[in-house]
Amino acid sequence: MTEPQDAALLAACRQLPVVGLLPAGPRNAITDVAGLRLGHCTVADGDLQTGVTVLIPPQGNPFMHKLPAGLAVINGFGKSAGLVQLAELGQIETPIALTNTFGVSAVVQAQIAHCIAANPECGRSLPTVNALVLECNDGYLSDIQRMAIGPAHYQAALDSASTEVQQGAVGAGRGMSAFQLKGGIGSASRQVVVGEQRYTVGALVLANMGKLSDLRWGGQAPGAALERRLQAKLAAATAAAATAAAAGDGVDKGSIIMLLATDAPLDSRQLSRVARRAAAGLANTGSCYGHGSGDIALAFSTAYTLPADAAAPMPALAMLHEAQLDPLFRAAADAVEQSILNALWHAQSVQGRDGHQRWGLQELCKD
Amino acid sequence: MTEPQDAALLAACRQLPVVGLLPAGPRNAITDVAGLRLGHCTVADGDLQTGVTVLIPPQGNPFMHKLPAGLAVINGFGKSAGLVQLAELGQIETPIALTNTFGVSAVVQAQIAHCIAANPECGRSLPTVNALVLECNDGYLSDIQRMAIGPAHYQAALDSASTEVQQGAVGAGRGMSAFQLKGGIGSASRQVVVGEQRYTVGALVLANMGKLSDLRWGGQAPGAALERRLQAKLAAATAAAATAAAAGDGVDKGSIIMLLATDAPLDSRQLSRVARRAAAGLANTGSCYGHGSGDIALAFSTAYTLPADAAAPMPALAMLHEAQLDPLFRAAADAVEQSILNALWHAQSVQGRDGHQRWGLQELCKD
Amino acid sequence: MTEPQDAALLAACRQLPVVGLLPAGPRNAITDVAGLRLGHCTVADGDLQTGVTVLIPPQGNPFMHKLPAGLAVINGFGKSAGLVQLAELGQIETPIALTNTFGVSAVVQAQIAHCIAANPECGRSLPTVNALVLECNDGYLSDIQRMAIGPAHYQAALDSASTEVQQGAVGAGRGMSAFQLKGGIGSASRQVVVGEQRYTVGALVLANMGKLSDLRWGGQAPGAALERRLQAKLAAATAAAATAAAAGDGVDKGSIIMLLATDAPLDSRQLSRVARRAAAGLANTGSCYGHGSGDIALAFSTAYTLPADAAAPMPALAMLHEAQLDPLFRAAADAVEQSILNALWHAQSVQGRDGHQRWGLQELCKD
Amino acid sequence: MTEPQDAALLAACRQLPVVGLLPAGPRNAITDVAGLRLGHCTVADGDLQTGVTVLIPPQGNPFMHKLPAGLAVINGFGKSAGLVQLAELGQIETPIALTNTFGVSAVVQAQIAHCIAANPECGRSLPTVNALVLECNDGYLSDIQRMAIGPAHYQAALDSASTEVQQGAVGAGRGMSAFQLKGGIGSASRQVVVGEQRYTVGALVLANMGKLSDLRWGGQAPGAALERRLQAKLAAATAAAATAAAAGDGVDKGSIIMLLATDAPLDSRQLSRVARRAAAGLANTGSCYGHGSGDIALAFSTAYTLPADAAAPMPALAMLHEAQLDPLFRAAADAVEQSILNALWHAQSVQGRDGHQRWGLQELCKD
Repeated sequence: MTEPQDAALLAACRQLPVVGLLPAGPRNAITDVAGLRLGHCTVADGDLQTGVTVLIPPQGNPFMHKLPAGLAVINGFGKSAGLVQLAELGQIETPIALTNTFGVSAVVQAQIAHCIAANPECGRSLPTVNALVLECNDGYLSDIQRMAIGPAHYQAALDSASTEVQQGAVGAGRGMSAFQLKGGIGSASRQVVVGEQRYTVGALVLANMGKLSDLRWGGQAPGAALERRLQAKLAAATAAAATAAAAGDGVDKGSIIMLLATDAPLDSRQLSRVARRAAAGLANTGSCYGHGSGDIALAFSTAYTLPADAAAPMPALAMLHEAQLDPLFRAAADAVEQSILNALWHAQSVQGRDGHQRWGLQELCKD
Repeated sequence: MTEPQDAALLAACRQLPVVGLLPAGPRNAITDVAGLRLGHCTVADGDLQTGVTVLIPPQGNPFMHKLPAGLAVINGFGKSAGLVQLAELGQIETPIALTNTFGVSAVVQAQIAHCIAANPECGRSLPTVNALVLECNDGYLSDIQRMAIGPAHYQAALDSASTEVQQGAVGAGRGMSAFQLKGGIGSASRQVVVGEQRYTVGALVLANMGKLSDLRWGGQAPGAALERRLQAKLAAATAAAATAAAAGDGVDKGSIIMLLATDAPLDSRQLSRVARRAAAGLANTGSCYGHGSGDIALAFSTAYTLPADAAAPMPALAMLHEAQLDPLFRAAADAVEQSILNALWHAQSVQGRDGHQRWGLQELCKD
Repeated sequence: MTEPQDAALLAACRQLPVVGLLPAGPRNAITDVAGLRLGHCTVADGDLQTGVTVLIPPQGNPFMHKLPAGLAVINGFGKSAGLVQLAELGQIETPIALTNTFGVSAVVQAQIAHCIAANPECGRSLPTVNALVLECNDGYLSDIQRMAIGPAHYQAALDSASTEVQQGAVGAGRGMSAFQLKGGIGSASRQVVVGEQRYTVGALVLANMGKLSDLRWGGQAPGAALERRLQAKLAAATAAAATAAAAGDGVDKGSIIMLLATDAPLDSRQLSRVARRAAAGLANTGSCYGHGSGDIALAFSTAYTLPADAAAPMPALAMLHEAQLDPLFRAAADAVEQSILNALWHAQSVQGRDGHQRWGLQELCKD
Repeated sequence: MTEPQDAALLAACRQLPVVGLLPAGPRNAITDVAGLRLGHCTVADGDLQTGVTVLIPPQGNPFMHKLPAGLAVINGFGKSAGLVQLAELGQIETPIALTNTFGVSAVVQAQIAHCIAANPECGRSLPTVNALVLECNDGYLSDIQRMAIGPAHYQAALDSASTEVQQGAVGAGRGMSAFQLKGGIGSASRQVVVGEQRYTVGALVLANMGKLSDLRWGGQAPGAALERRLQAKLAAATAAAATAAAAGDGVDKGSIIMLLATDAPLDSRQLSRVARRAAAGLANTGSCYGHGSGDIALAFSTAYTLPADAAAPMPALAMLHEAQLDPLFRAAADAVEQSILNALWHAQSVQGRDGHQRWGLQELCKD
């Protein structure tokens, strides 16, 4: 019994928009950047709907061969680990892990243990390792207070890594909400040509932000229509579920982590500029970076590595000219926007803690 | 002879979209924030198409009664004056002036002279004044190398100030381009209720950025259609004009200055957070903050002033709670987006330096 | 058998210099700021020489009544937790904990558990808590790879808290080195009068940085003399100890955490300015912020609190005028410098991991 | 009639301390970095005691061949031009000019005119130029309100440029005060060996900050002794001069600009880290970065240039490893400290506006 004025908007939501004019890579995912692998460990067990996602750089041992990287703190209401040192040195030296807010510490510990195992002098004759673990709060769907994430989840995510990218309610995305719908993991890529060289920009988001009324979907604003649809679904549900759904909604409005990877040769300052363009992609989905949202973007390049050993030769390659960055900026913004849409598109409905429920967009809009 | 597929897009461009769900103030302009006045001095004389715009705070002497303010450098390719001290002290102590890039120095000098006239101890027993002059490069339409702006233009802008807001190709906006169309001055406002209190957020932009293919207009992407329309117009023009138009386009892709004013009681850090939301409004018009674009936002509050005299009493009022900022963030993003649309909407076509021409959107889309 | 030219320098090192002209508070410690308490848990057990230190704000429940705070990242080679959100919101909402680099995660978990116990809705209807745990690497004296710190150490530090301040090789300072001597915990305070009001600035440092040749002590540069003294001590030691001491020295050159507290009414931006002056105090001891050193300062005020509850009234008190900050800047710099000197002065010699040893300054210089 | 306790301190002030253990270059000046030239234009005419100083990069046309650079805003109470773009792009594209606060605009205009003359497409098909003009307030000795600096002074400074470095009350330093004594221009250099390569770090300061009571001179604190000496001099002067000297002192406590140049291959982020070490050198002279002081440092490298032309090849050379930066950090801190001492040492006494006078340190301390 959809209101007539809602029908067109719901129909629009049954199609996945394609963002922008740039071509995607073959997988339309961050793993289109050669050498990257992505792994998930998903916990889906009643009141626990959470997990860990890991993005693994091409290098076997990033602690010894670091990647140039840049950071953009769009809104700093967040508890990610490793950002201060990343900003200072412009380097990444571990896989990039994503998990829930209260799971950060356990994954940091797992990363430290991994690094020591591979580099026995870590913290002795070598510096300590800068674990890099980013987070959103999945406490609406998952019982975050149980601190259920442990080192085994990180290991499982590593073990599952491949170039195939699963999206939606998987890994760290399992319990996340976006625009009051089911959010989670999304990924996309865009290709650009600079000079005569083709480069790929890949994005991976952990989407857990936004109010439904703000959602932009292919140029449309279907928020009110979707809200009516949600109300209708709730009316059809049991009274208990409806109360749970209504009561628990929304104090900590979540966050979004936006990872950008490229094979273009850029230095840390340039990568910071690329990362800042994630703010444009995010805005285009309707968000304006809510107060309580930890909106963090980081960008890294796989074009070269930086040796941990000060006696090893430093890379001597030409970076892109500053004026050549515009296509990469557009690719970054578009890939982030597409990744957020993809996260919504792929996320299945999930029911979790205390009967709280998030609808997957596709399921919600189904005829 | 419009292509059939373009007709709907051009029709959409014949209407001014209303951004978001928040109500505008009575003028839908930055002067809805009580006490603010806006003045323009427009230079429209052949190869010179430029000017000065001034936003005047309510206080008679802002050097003695400073306004709290915050800054967001979204992309720092710009030559505005006064930003470093604004970032350190969180204060504005002059009217805010806008002009072309090479006119900044003359307006700085005019502001210094004004401040000395009103405060004879400025630079002696009182500190020097931090002139605040923001800029975009109008060199496509105006002969910026002639450095035609002088103190008289600043004075004329001050003299013309009122609560009535002229938009488009006026004042500093006279020679500006946006999305390869005629850009310039735009303004808008939004009202929010926090607790039981109503607050206004006003925006004023000097819009001089963007590629036509990126333009978003009411959820549509009319760039390609407008480009075909432009080509048709060029074909109808003289060969000389067409060559000029084609040749001069686009190395320094411009900039945008985004001013935000509010009567809500916020401190400098909070105003920086508000200013950062301008990035969302800008992105929603299609920009992703081009490399060569000086995208600068600043926000200030009129709710209280800070005395220059250290012996005078400091204000003792309650700021808004951090968690109450979300409506203000949305208002800031929406008011900036609306202001950019307004700038395009109100800007008339202008012909300037070396036969260069920019079409006003309305004129371009006219049947 | 001291070289004659060294005698005067060693004599100078047998006296604790008094930094600057401002008077200290009654304890000459951070607890001169009313309401603050400091607690240590020290682990001194063979290869483990480490610990936890906690600075507790006056408020019973800082998660509900947050303190205004500001941050200065002087050199960002560090892994402290909680800094990104502190920079965004300008607030502290837990006790401030110090520990070793690889112990951060365990203390974060302990802080989360404490916060949940006191605020059962933390991470549910209330936001997640921003644990604040700062660190240095004590890996020269302690087997950091064993990750020996756990929640019980945090609890023990809390339980021991009082206004009495123990300094030197205690708590988180147990295993720290400074200027290749024994470093650790130091504290000091300074009093200033602004207008007719007296304010206190207290400092607490965890000192683990610096090369001996850089040390400045009361205007002297006793580094070379102390180095000769160290060599003489080593010559007298067993060959094994000498080898251990020589071999393990120095890749990760450590870090310093500098906490500043004041009862002056300052907002977050002003507190950031105060925190930045820690860089001056640190420089005056001889450091120039080594590449591998996480040199982090934060400052907070106890003059008011910020409610977690957005419906609660916000504080409405006058901040100090910006031009009144100079005495506080001097107090901050001097208190930090004095704290570092105090840390060296009070630290006893410690022998730890693999026979590594650090001499306490007093013991080293004893006749 | 020197107090006995002051005699030793005054004697210490009759010698120029040598800062640190690193060797200086042959000139002990910033022009030890090959290719740099320094020019002054000094205005010494009654109430006008001011000028312009220019540091000229090796490249003939820095607008087409930019230098990598980094910025550190230690205290942002300043009105320098060009810093926002420098921070974004990490590049310098003009000579670096120093002058008084109200002279910045005139020198900006002169730099723009120069750039247009050398690059006729500047502001047309090429971007506008980012003039780089740094300043301190010399209003105590000079009538800053007359805005006496014009393009001719900039030109004269350029014309006078050489590798010979004049220090003290010359150029932009003519009217500057430091520690309530005569300040101005100072320069120094330090050499370091990294790997097997020797690099030079040069510093140039425009010193106009500090209170006499804070001064550190070779490890001593001669402030009180110098203050008594000053009082004695004043007592011997005419009553009018004494009144002038006492009355005009100190609201705007000045500023310091610290330029660092090196031939080491560093990128912009690394140069920012080098620039930040100027804060240590400054602190070691006794300053703690006063509220009203614009304490700005920038560092640049002459090891390579960045082409304006996006089609030109970008440099492909290896930067130094991050862990090799420590000697450069020490050199930067020491060269800045030495430069400030040199400025005080070389500055002659100057009498200026309204009978205001600053004593040169040497003259003040003369027997």
